[in-house]
Amino acid sequence: MTTTEAGAGTPSTDAEAVGAEVVTDHDRGVHGYHKQKAEHLKRLRRIEGQIRGLQRMVDEDVYCIDILTQVSASTKALQSFALQLLEEHLRHCVADAALRGGDEIDAKVEEATRAIARLLRT
Amino acid sequence: MTTTEAGAGTPSTDAEAVGAEVVTDHDRGVHGYHKQKAEHLKRLRRIEGQIRGLQRMVDEDVYCIDILTQVSASTKALQSFALQLLEEHLRHCVADAALRGGDEIDAKVEEATRAIARLLRT
Amino acid sequence: MTTTEAGAGTPSTDAEAVGAEVVTDHDRGVHGYHKQKAEHLKRLRRIEGQIRGLQRMVDEDVYCIDILTQVSASTKALQSFALQLLEEHLRHCVADAALRGGDEIDAKVEEATRAIARLLRT
Amino acid sequence: MTTTEAGAGTPSTDAEAVGAEVVTDHDRGVHGYHKQKAEHLKRLRRIEGQIRGLQRMVDEDVYCIDILTQVSASTKALQSFALQLLEEHLRHCVADAALRGGDEIDAKVEEATRAIARLLRT
Repeated sequence: MTTTEAGAGTPSTDAEAVGAEVVTDHDRGVHGYHKQKAEHLKRLRRIEGQIRGLQRMVDEDVYCIDILTQVSASTKALQSFALQLLEEHLRHCVADAALRGGDEIDAKVEEATRAIARLLRT
Repeated sequence: MTTTEAGAGTPSTDAEAVGAEVVTDHDRGVHGYHKQKAEHLKRLRRIEGQIRGLQRMVDEDVYCIDILTQVSASTKALQSFALQLLEEHLRHCVADAALRGGDEIDAKVEEATRAIARLLRT
Repeated sequence: MTTTEAGAGTPSTDAEAVGAEVVTDHDRGVHGYHKQKAEHLKRLRRIEGQIRGLQRMVDEDVYCIDILTQVSASTKALQSFALQLLEEHLRHCVADAALRGGDEIDAKVEEATRAIARLLRT
Repeated sequence: MTTTEAGAGTPSTDAEAVGAEVVTDHDRGVHGYHKQKAEHLKRLRRIEGQIRGLQRMVDEDVYCIDILTQVSASTKALQSFALQLLEEHLRHCVADAALRGGDEIDAKVEEATRAIARLLRT
């Protein structure tokens, strides 16, 4: 990670050229999804509620197929959350790597593709 | 639902011929997954914990890819739970319908296949 | 597999009680999907054509995203074919096992669930 | 698409600054996957062969589950091909958009994420 001389209070944009170096949010420990954090937490809380709902359904001996329908809804919600995160990651983390040049873009793209493969195989 | 003359306290087997009628656990309001209930609840509690873990990861600005890895693990766990439930459903609910004869097997199989399609499309 | 004394020319139904034995289409080497064979072959020929289309797209340097759209269409078509086959399998092979009784239903259901798991994980 | 003064015979690199403009392979009508074309065609020919194999299996009344196993193999192969293409697309098309700046990166990332969503939902 490259360092910068910009002071702590300097407002940042996603990519800011300082001298010959490019400084990004990533260098400051902030990742692409930061701005949508509240939205993500809300989604995950809802999914958590759905999982508790599944436990109630099992406990109350609800018909198998109805439980499976709820599982599908929860899996779909998790995948949507993942896609949201992925989009932000590509927009910030991968674009930043492209701007920094060198081999980093290859590494970032490979890492992102492996994550997508894992999502596909569940 | 067919009735039986077996008393309330009579231990039941999955399929019990009473006269010319077949009485199954389904008629008594118990579904295939009942016996594995404790196991299912344990699995779901673990998945619930994973979803809370995801919220912590988002809150702590953990790296995007690491969050996606955890999402994949949770989705996989949900699908495993669904497959477990599906297997029990096929073994009890669909087999019972086969024993009862008539059109019911078609309806049960069609319903199960639609549930599988939903799992596939998430 | 149980044998029967029914002659070669005897019309068969899916499940035919002969004495104390149940004889099914499975015993005669015919599986659930046999009746829809023409429909299945037509679907598969169409998918085969789509795969050739994908080769043309690659050869003509079509835009990446458009190729991915076609891949999704082909994967979806394959999954639909699989679901069709699965439904017929459950209706005939699994129902037959239920009628024959014993441990066979467990084995058939386990086998079908493993096949569903493989479809889910691709 | 931006134009360039580089002559037709000029060897190209993936991103080549000409004056103040960035010219990429995309502008010349070549996409990220071009270099691996032979490999892609080989993969697709193999998948095409598998689909013909599926037709033979249906024609020969092969056991349902064995056909489903082959379908899973073909779906998996198609998804692998898609991931390969996606990786190349991210590496070239999305990185190029990042270098060109402006709103294009958002559009490219959104388009790629929609394609990934379609792959996930089949």
